[in-house]
Amino acid sequence: MSVVTIEKKVLQKNDELAQQNRLFFARNSIFVINLVSSPGSGKTSILERTLDYLKGKVKIAVIEGDVQTDLDAQRIARLGVPVVQIVTNGGCHLDANLVQNAIAKINLKNAELLVIENVGNLVCPAGYDLGEAMKVVVASTTEGDDKPLKYPAMFRNASVLIVNKIDLVPYVDCNLEQLKKNALQINPSLKVFETSCTTNAGIAEWSEWLLGKSVGP
Amino acid sequence: MSVVTIEKKVLQKNDELAQQNRLFFARNSIFVINLVSSPGSGKTSILERTLDYLKGKVKIAVIEGDVQTDLDAQRIARLGVPVVQIVTNGGCHLDANLVQNAIAKINLKNAELLVIENVGNLVCPAGYDLGEAMKVVVASTTEGDDKPLKYPAMFRNASVLIVNKIDLVPYVDCNLEQLKKNALQINPSLKVFETSCTTNAGIAEWSEWLLGKSVGP
Repeated sequence: MSVVTIEKKVLQKNDELAQQNRLFFARNSIFVINLVSSPGSGKTSILERTLDYLKGKVKIAVIEGDVQTDLDAQRIARLGVPVVQIVTNGGCHLDANLVQNAIAKINLKNAELLVIENVGNLVCPAGYDLGEAMKVVVASTTEGDDKPLKYPAMFRNASVLIVNKIDLVPYVDCNLEQLKKNALQINPSLKVFETSCTTNAGIAEWSEWLLGKSVGP
Repeated sequence: MSVVTIEKKVLQKNDELAQQNRLFFARNSIFVINLVSSPGSGKTSILERTLDYLKGKVKIAVIEGDVQTDLDAQRIARLGVPVVQIVTNGGCHLDANLVQNAIAKINLKNAELLVIENVGNLVCPAGYDLGEAMKVVVASTTEGDDKPLKYPAMFRNASVLIVNKIDLVPYVDCNLEQLKKNALQINPSLKVFETSCTTNAGIAEWSEWLLGKSVGP
């Protein structure tokens, strides 16, 4: 059996489990996002600000994915939100099976929104459906404006782009308009937000949009 | 045959090809570094500054690895250095076979130093030997100080850490001493440099060290 065949079988099995997860989330009316980005783009910081903004407005649970450590789950737990950590032990992405295991360990009673924070990796998580409603990709201005062109699959498979660290634009080599233009060239239907976790810019707009998706109009 | 067995066979084959590459580099007296980091940490910018500093001092060639586009190879070619681009078409890391193919396409005549810039990914390239003398990992201060703990394999397998974008420390949530402490906790033998491609800080020190490794005392 060739490597390609094995990979196809792995992805096929993943898609089956993802579909089971999707049905579970639908039955329980839980809106699920898969938060993806490079390491250090600010996924956890955005999540902290979002949880703070949405406190009392919607019931949220979090699944944290990391190659190693539970540092991110500790940060989220401090906000009083149900959270479970998946440590992949070297694995470069979450998969539907890992998420299914995590579901069994987290209190999803009454949850309306589940945020799955993926491993920091702009390549591999693009190919793995977890059963989410949508992928939300975070791109930091500090990474430069060419990343959508260089890592197109992630931007193609995402529904939302959050451009983070916009407060740093004056100090870094990144043209914000070019970054958005490059992303929309790869995926014209991307919904784009601009945020800063230092100034809180854009957090309200993004959080309100997410709230609308989670609990409807 | 299980997925694990297939993966072992893939890595075993990779190690064989890496060993061939290593012998080739040794026979031709070429010092080779494998430059790794997250997307947007500044690998290409550091390389541009290094090439500029080392101009006339050592003969350099470059292999650029990217998931998509030849934007980085274009940047390097402008500096008059022999360069070849590997586009992985979705692949999350370079491997020894891709490098072997690239060697056949690049002018290595008289080359003393070969820089292989890997795909931006802090996870997968850690496991793939390309035949290099050493891995050099770049960590940007904008990614925060916890990355060595969260992505330990890359820091464990590297010989050198370049902490880049130190000019941005005043504006970001990163304790430089903690970042270095975390990296040295994972790998106490890491040689650490601090650089900024905006102010050119640290470029001379790093380049001189690399020059020493490439052409000897």
